[in-house]
Amino acid sequence: MTTLQLLTPEESALRLSRIQRLMADASVPAILVTDNANIYYLTGRVFDGYIYIPAEGAPLYFVRRPVDLGGDGVVRIRKPEQIAESLTLNIPPVVGLELDLLPYTSAQRISAIFPGSEIVNASPVLRAARSVKTEVEIGMIKQSGLRQERVYRMVPRLYRDGMTDLELQVEIERVSRLEGCLGQFRISGDSMELYMGNVLVGDNADNPTPYDFAMGGRGLDPSLPVGADGTMIRRGNSVMVDVNGNYTGYMTDMTRTFSLGEVDALAMRAHRCSIDICERLAAMGTPGAEAKQLYHTAEEMAREAGLERYFMGHAQKAGFVGHGVGIEINEMPVIAPRSRDILAEGNVIALEPKFVIPGVGAVGIENTYVMTSAGMQSLTNAPVEIIQFAQ
Amino acid sequence: MTTLQLLTPEESALRLSRIQRLMADASVPAILVTDNANIYYLTGRVFDGYIYIPAEGAPLYFVRRPVDLGGDGVVRIRKPEQIAESLTLNIPPVVGLELDLLPYTSAQRISAIFPGSEIVNASPVLRAARSVKTEVEIGMIKQSGLRQERVYRMVPRLYRDGMTDLELQVEIERVSRLEGCLGQFRISGDSMELYMGNVLVGDNADNPTPYDFAMGGRGLDPSLPVGADGTMIRRGNSVMVDVNGNYTGYMTDMTRTFSLGEVDALAMRAHRCSIDICERLAAMGTPGAEAKQLYHTAEEMAREAGLERYFMGHAQKAGFVGHGVGIEINEMPVIAPRSRDILAEGNVIALEPKFVIPGVGAVGIENTYVMTSAGMQSLTNAPVEIIQFAQ
Repeated sequence: MTTLQLLTPEESALRLSRIQRLMADASVPAILVTDNANIYYLTGRVFDGYIYIPAEGAPLYFVRRPVDLGGDGVVRIRKPEQIAESLTLNIPPVVGLELDLLPYTSAQRISAIFPGSEIVNASPVLRAARSVKTEVEIGMIKQSGLRQERVYRMVPRLYRDGMTDLELQVEIERVSRLEGCLGQFRISGDSMELYMGNVLVGDNADNPTPYDFAMGGRGLDPSLPVGADGTMIRRGNSVMVDVNGNYTGYMTDMTRTFSLGEVDALAMRAHRCSIDICERLAAMGTPGAEAKQLYHTAEEMAREAGLERYFMGHAQKAGFVGHGVGIEINEMPVIAPRSRDILAEGNVIALEPKFVIPGVGAVGIENTYVMTSAGMQSLTNAPVEIIQFAQ
Repeated sequence: MTTLQLLTPEESALRLSRIQRLMADASVPAILVTDNANIYYLTGRVFDGYIYIPAEGAPLYFVRRPVDLGGDGVVRIRKPEQIAESLTLNIPPVVGLELDLLPYTSAQRISAIFPGSEIVNASPVLRAARSVKTEVEIGMIKQSGLRQERVYRMVPRLYRDGMTDLELQVEIERVSRLEGCLGQFRISGDSMELYMGNVLVGDNADNPTPYDFAMGGRGLDPSLPVGADGTMIRRGNSVMVDVNGNYTGYMTDMTRTFSLGEVDALAMRAHRCSIDICERLAAMGTPGAEAKQLYHTAEEMAREAGLERYFMGHAQKAGFVGHGVGIEINEMPVIAPRSRDILAEGNVIALEPKFVIPGVGAVGIENTYVMTSAGMQSLTNAPVEIIQFAQ
């Protein structure tokens, strides 16, 4: 038998206590968790089943698969209806479920286990808990950042004359995987899809995508319309590399721009503006700052530089300039014009002020920052300038 | 502006008429579709938005992103509430939503657009429609099969002495991507996760996984506990290769087994049994056959060969021996003991009778078959015998 809980007792208690404090604030006396990302947050592993979090005290772990897990609080089940048997003495009047994620029919089935209880949405509580990372989580994100940085430093050596965007991306994928990248690109919800990140060359960056990413790209096929589309890398093109930084279960998000030959002056100026925006936002971003204020500052800097029409896309624009990152790529807080998020110590935030310059491609950088009491520190430290490929 | 509909008028009408016939049978006079896989099925592309399918006549396409789509029936929206404005004259009494996939809060929000209508689950109708492929879909699946076969034939040349399972998998991923593999491994629902397939070596095949795949593996990290775990490939080990066959938006699913040196007699016998089961099931599988009968036959053949304890896993067993495949890897029908599915012409089904032999690893094959009036034809035709790597 294998012990289910992979977190240390201290770490497990810390994460639990944060959730239970937020549950008390929201008057949710119990939560039944089933989303893989939240199960991983609470145990350090993914299993198929449910975690019952009471208002106080230890959780119960209802496990369907794998068959070999055991330990304190583990209850083996074949179907969710068996959860009720373990809770008969203590069915709470209100039960929180992950209603922003749980399919409607699954939510109905689980609600039927608690026939006398009011069902409420626990997604905001869990999202809020996960938006403030623990030291252990920050350590894992740092590890991912270091390994992703090693890969990005290799990119210039992977370029060969005559390559397409896809061919370069495949070589980056290969070195990432050999460096230990897990590949899986975790995104909360079903609507966004991406395979191992995005390499954008030239005007392909201006192809709009259905997905809510900062940048687009036509993709290789209309079934996955994002990213590389087989474009040849030509002189004067920028090559934006934004690939998967999931090395530890916790992701970093980093973008760097390369080029074949020089890019034009407008693109160089936009790239410099991206670096300046990152620096300014990182300096502004202190605990208690408003997320939307960071967005407005970024937009204003782009406008003052006369680059507004290229900012966050050209044919189609993204509606944000940064986002929380951790187990998933789309965590809280969101750095967007109507965001109501307030930045807090322990947030991990990717800032990605990018530009699309017609005839050149996408330029700009993205870094992942941890919010400390002293401000935002970058965890993704590859060189920020545009690096030209040797020909 | 780009025309939204990528299917030919005939193909689009064919898919629509199938869905509308199933809607009539199920007394669902309208469906609002939003799942990426179903949107792709109806248009040949993924977009962010909704498709309104009436009982009769042409659909309406409500598009949020990308911004450049237009054409017949296209209505641009920023939020789902705007759908009601286009339908004011014709709000149906019953509206079907994809309730097996749509998160609870999204379903509530969309239900509020139709305040006087009863909301029912349209997932079964859409699943049933997609389980019977059109000639165009079968053509795309065949294309994927041919390209996946080319990759599998390259596998022996990718092996180098001293490789780990991950190192071999990375080289298979690379040639797959260069062959045009889209990477994205589409799975319906949120609970199963996999990156680009599974390479299982030796006893790692016996590590149970939380996911509902036929085989397990410890994985590289407890955040993604499936597949390769860094095991060195040793003499006498089997190497089971089951990697992503998504080359066209439609997937094939194929598994082949390789080895370093010879595997023992038990493993050889189990591998032969897998081939025999595939042949027998493919011969039994005619339109009108019961899916569960195929499962029972497979189980019986394993039992008669004295291989029952290794069949579909050893430490943990999978509960099925085959599954529908197409846009997603887990389509209908399901070949399982309690399946109520009846096989039909146009089904595309992966059969994967596999064995886990302690001390050796996983053995067996998987093929993807199309159901014709004359029976099941394999679309994945790499050599079926265990191929030994040259040392």
